Amino acid sequence: MVRFGLFGAGRIGQVHAATLAAHPRAELVVVCDPMLEFAGRLADTHGAVATSDVDAVLADDTIDAIVIGSPTPTHVDLLSRAVLAGKAVLCEKPIDLDLARVDACWEQIKDVDHTVMIGFNRRFDPSFADIRSRVAAGEVGQLEQLIVISRDPEPPPAAYLAASGGLFRDMTIHDFDMVRFFLGDVVEVSATGTNLVADHVREAGDIDGAVVVLRGASGAVAQITNSRRCAFGYDQRLEAFGSTGMLTADNLRPTSVRYSGAERTEAAAPYLNFFLERYLPAYRAELDHFIGAVENGTEPSPRFADGRAALLLADAAGESMRTGSVVRLG
Amino acid sequence: MVRFGLFGAGRIGQVHAATLAAHPRAELVVVCDPMLEFAGRLADTHGAVATSDVDAVLADDTIDAIVIGSPTPTHVDLLSRAVLAGKAVLCEKPIDLDLARVDACWEQIKDVDHTVMIGFNRRFDPSFADIRSRVAAGEVGQLEQLIVISRDPEPPPAAYLAASGGLFRDMTIHDFDMVRFFLGDVVEVSATGTNLVADHVREAGDIDGAVVVLRGASGAVAQITNSRRCAFGYDQRLEAFGSTGMLTADNLRPTSVRYSGAERTEAAAPYLNFFLERYLPAYRAELDHFIGAVENGTEPSPRFADGRAALLLADAAGESMRTGSVVRLG
Amino acid sequence: MVRFGLFGAGRIGQVHAATLAAHPRAELVVVCDPMLEFAGRLADTHGAVATSDVDAVLADDTIDAIVIGSPTPTHVDLLSRAVLAGKAVLCEKPIDLDLARVDACWEQIKDVDHTVMIGFNRRFDPSFADIRSRVAAGEVGQLEQLIVISRDPEPPPAAYLAASGGLFRDMTIHDFDMVRFFLGDVVEVSATGTNLVADHVREAGDIDGAVVVLRGASGAVAQITNSRRCAFGYDQRLEAFGSTGMLTADNLRPTSVRYSGAERTEAAAPYLNFFLERYLPAYRAELDHFIGAVENGTEPSPRFADGRAALLLADAAGESMRTGSVVRLG
Amino acid sequence: MVRFGLFGAGRIGQVHAATLAAHPRAELVVVCDPMLEFAGRLADTHGAVATSDVDAVLADDTIDAIVIGSPTPTHVDLLSRAVLAGKAVLCEKPIDLDLARVDACWEQIKDVDHTVMIGFNRRFDPSFADIRSRVAAGEVGQLEQLIVISRDPEPPPAAYLAASGGLFRDMTIHDFDMVRFFLGDVVEVSATGTNLVADHVREAGDIDGAVVVLRGASGAVAQITNSRRCAFGYDQRLEAFGSTGMLTADNLRPTSVRYSGAERTEAAAPYLNFFLERYLPAYRAELDHFIGAVENGTEPSPRFADGRAALLLADAAGESMRTGSVVRLG
Repeated sequence: MVRFGLFGAGRIGQVHAATLAAHPRAELVVVCDPMLEFAGRLADTHGAVATSDVDAVLADDTIDAIVIGSPTPTHVDLLSRAVLAGKAVLCEKPIDLDLARVDACWEQIKDVDHTVMIGFNRRFDPSFADIRSRVAAGEVGQLEQLIVISRDPEPPPAAYLAASGGLFRDMTIHDFDMVRFFLGDVVEVSATGTNLVADHVREAGDIDGAVVVLRGASGAVAQITNSRRCAFGYDQRLEAFGSTGMLTADNLRPTSVRYSGAERTEAAAPYLNFFLERYLPAYRAELDHFIGAVENGTEPSPRFADGRAALLLADAAGESMRTGSVVRLG
Repeated sequence: MVRFGLFGAGRIGQVHAATLAAHPRAELVVVCDPMLEFAGRLADTHGAVATSDVDAVLADDTIDAIVIGSPTPTHVDLLSRAVLAGKAVLCEKPIDLDLARVDACWEQIKDVDHTVMIGFNRRFDPSFADIRSRVAAGEVGQLEQLIVISRDPEPPPAAYLAASGGLFRDMTIHDFDMVRFFLGDVVEVSATGTNLVADHVREAGDIDGAVVVLRGASGAVAQITNSRRCAFGYDQRLEAFGSTGMLTADNLRPTSVRYSGAERTEAAAPYLNFFLERYLPAYRAELDHFIGAVENGTEPSPRFADGRAALLLADAAGESMRTGSVVRLG
Repeated sequence: MVRFGLFGAGRIGQVHAATLAAHPRAELVVVCDPMLEFAGRLADTHGAVATSDVDAVLADDTIDAIVIGSPTPTHVDLLSRAVLAGKAVLCEKPIDLDLARVDACWEQIKDVDHTVMIGFNRRFDPSFADIRSRVAAGEVGQLEQLIVISRDPEPPPAAYLAASGGLFRDMTIHDFDMVRFFLGDVVEVSATGTNLVADHVREAGDIDGAVVVLRGASGAVAQITNSRRCAFGYDQRLEAFGSTGMLTADNLRPTSVRYSGAERTEAAAPYLNFFLERYLPAYRAELDHFIGAVENGTEPSPRFADGRAALLLADAAGESMRTGSVVRLG
Repeated sequence: MVRFGLFGAGRIGQVHAATLAAHPRAELVVVCDPMLEFAGRLADTHGAVATSDVDAVLADDTIDAIVIGSPTPTHVDLLSRAVLAGKAVLCEKPIDLDLARVDACWEQIKDVDHTVMIGFNRRFDPSFADIRSRVAAGEVGQLEQLIVISRDPEPPPAAYLAASGGLFRDMTIHDFDMVRFFLGDVVEVSATGTNLVADHVREAGDIDGAVVVLRGASGAVAQITNSRRCAFGYDQRLEAFGSTGMLTADNLRPTSVRYSGAERTEAAAPYLNFFLERYLPAYRAELDHFIGAVENGTEPSPRFADGRAALLLADAAGESMRTGSVVRLG
């Protein structure tokens, strides 16, 4: 049984709490949040204790592992303190919005024996993971083109945007990691941004749509298509095209029901609405992978360097969008 | 070049005229119909001559082959006269509505060297034909269950029904032939009829829906589902289930377009509306097969005996529906 | 919190134990099985106690509800004793294989205030339930034809068959209930059986495939297609065809991944293999419905009479198969 | 009846000859090719005469219209001579590989009353045309993102490549026109090229894959994905994503048959192999549109300016690929 402390009792903290509670080899011991009332409510639901005292959690020797689901600005501090306290850490993405702070965090933990995993949960989505392993097994021959379509149902409110770091660091960061999951090192980034969805996004100095083209070291090319609005749900698709074939992952729906009538045939329901529903199995599989790493003393994946690399791509995309030129990396 | 005379200038005659005109090795020479005006209009369209004189057509030695697309009651007479006149014959289904008349016709032609094909065009539908040949090649192992779904968009008018011979002999006859195409000889028939669609069908003493279960000599079982009304178009599907797999044929649509919006996703257009659109490639392939048989002196398929066998199944289905008991054949 | 006792620690008992353990308002208190070792292992997994003493469980006033997942021959005895002990009961299907025993059980409980639900879990499958409620809401107009396809991956072993009551009472019983779920009272049954799959089924005097046609009181017709073997997984589909449209439920797969290569395109994985995977959400929703009924004192559905009615249809199907005639009910 | 002369008896000339022969209001009068033998063979098939004398064709006052299907370098000369001779012209794409020659051609015809249509046949593909008209009708709200996937089955031989003008002018030119069909004027082009498919392409100084991102004047963004090799056939898809919904067009197959077996389910056949099969209905509809314009004296579409604009985008893509920067137009 791996004993867990959870930082953050907000939306994503609740996901992790439920996932921890359901895992047969995990025990959620303590929920820590500066808003003690929220921590208490979440802790009660899952039979844990609540606190707002970070030090107390980290000093508790019966706690093996930490899940960091608190706001992004707190990540690097909590991550390095948890590592230095000897805890295994599963940290939500992004590590931070600022590459310098990410690097400073790394300086603090790089010489410490650590088990740190970054929460790019989509690597654990059953469909994407299946494609990844089949590509690795050679089912499509040499991978040549990767198409990632990722559209949110609705743009976030202005308050969220203000702290988000912008579309590339907030939303595309998952897709950058997905590209790295398939292509490994990226050597070129070219990005196009759009403001077609919502005035409040433009007013926040952000974009609400994007196309990013990336070239991997192997020569394979990836495309990411983002939109902050999608009328028909949470649109999450992937296409891996190679020299001998193609593997695709389509969206998921709550049922397999289709309707045919005088106006249309085979109409399906809208997609599972958002990431909590769509990626719930991925959150579970992510946790399971992390627990396995803790139990076996192996290095989990994706790791700190993967979190840093995705942020680097986000910054490169921003630069490409501003300059209108390809940004070459590495 | 095979030179053709066409009997019948109605709806199905027009299909055959157009198909003949488009075939590179066929020449439509004469259109014959008692309504000379209709014959003339159709002949003009395709550069043929028109007549209402059956004998003249049959006496014309430059004519190699006859397509019979006239009303059902005229089939047996025209068929036997054409055969006796030395013509190859492609006769629309059904041969006749009365098994005794079919048998009398056979008596007239059985000892004459003849080339007679019955127009069960669905055997030539590219999807059904593909499944048939793949089943024959063993792709599903031993064929065990065949499901035929066949629904018309709308019930025919009362006048049509009065002369139709009833649902089993008019509509299901195609499906009986399809079952024989896959299962060969049928040894048991069990039928259930319904009146759920239209009062005028019930008033005509006919049914407007049916389920027929048939057992083949091999032990395989087939199901036919019919309805005289289908809100979403002309529903024509087939499922061949065997010991090692299954082959299915879905409906066809005019385009591959799908719509996703707030209410629904992947909605397609209604199906191709009716048999002229849905089975146009089948009519073409059917004619091509017949021309090949004429050119090569081989026996076309389906042949006279297949037309008789389908009618026998229709009669057996009627009997089963009336008695509530399985009818055993052969 | 509803406190549960579970009878039966076998395959289906394990499903119920896991489902109970995961339900937020259920507590699995005791597992009861004559094989105390099995009961103990299952109880340990879920933090319950184990016993082989039925009376002790029924005498425990802290236990509110009983799940009966023991072998079929024990159902009626446990069901009536549990009801008489004042427990709410969720009993696995079938109530019994013998209609007389079912009726005798009913005599014992009919005058007792009881909460009895029969485990036709497929009514709670998200896709089937969605179709059912949309049909009720008029989305397909008047329901006219229902097609239920239900094929198992592999035939059960001879030992299982010997106690199963035959295909109609063991396998088709679920489909009979599904037909009743959609059509209500059934007035005609016509059945065809086949032996195409396995010698040991024939040797057991059983069939391994069937087509059953049923007519509802409304005039609508249902078809059930069964096979004890399906090469491509557990084939569970449904089609509800009505006067204005159609709703269909397709099979489920573990991912949405499709493969395209030189030989084929859009190939998906085989289906979820068997009922534990395919119907897990249905087992959960079934339990949730039962708990709601216990909490609110309402009558759960399907109820005892539904269990009896499905068995009656199974017997009628058997009679129809033997006599070759439609069996008329009610 | 519109009387036609056809320049070019090669592969594309044969397509046009067959399409002309099948059109009820077109008459193919003469086939003109410097290889008189080829012209003769093609003319014979369709009952036309053959010649190698361009002037004679253009001087024939009984000829109303010209289809130019000869090699690209001959297009501008034939086009301007035909226009000056008073013929309506349907010219295969591209007008020329050199923008200066295109402009010089325009100088020659711009003041002459002309009917010139450029053969971007994909605008007439039933699926793409359906999406285009539904987008125009507002079915997806404001169009925001267009995804065009276009992959050939196999790379062309070196000899073809040498005269092709490169991937952007030879293959992507169709996709550039498709983007303009949906987005109208393009204001930004950004292109990435790859050499992953064949050595002989690289040796020819060409690329064999590409991703092109284009921004329209409306702000909408389009992506084109090209590959010169596709293991599973001719991959031609389109996705039009807007503020309220999405319309997609999938690939076409020869039948609707799907196979399910122990290894896979719902496997379809490979796609229609190449453009002659895939776009045959488009060639027919294109001709029909052109004939309507000739008959009615209206301007056909796409017109000369559309041919020029697509070439301009091809050149801009080439420049962007070389410089690594966005190319801004207009």
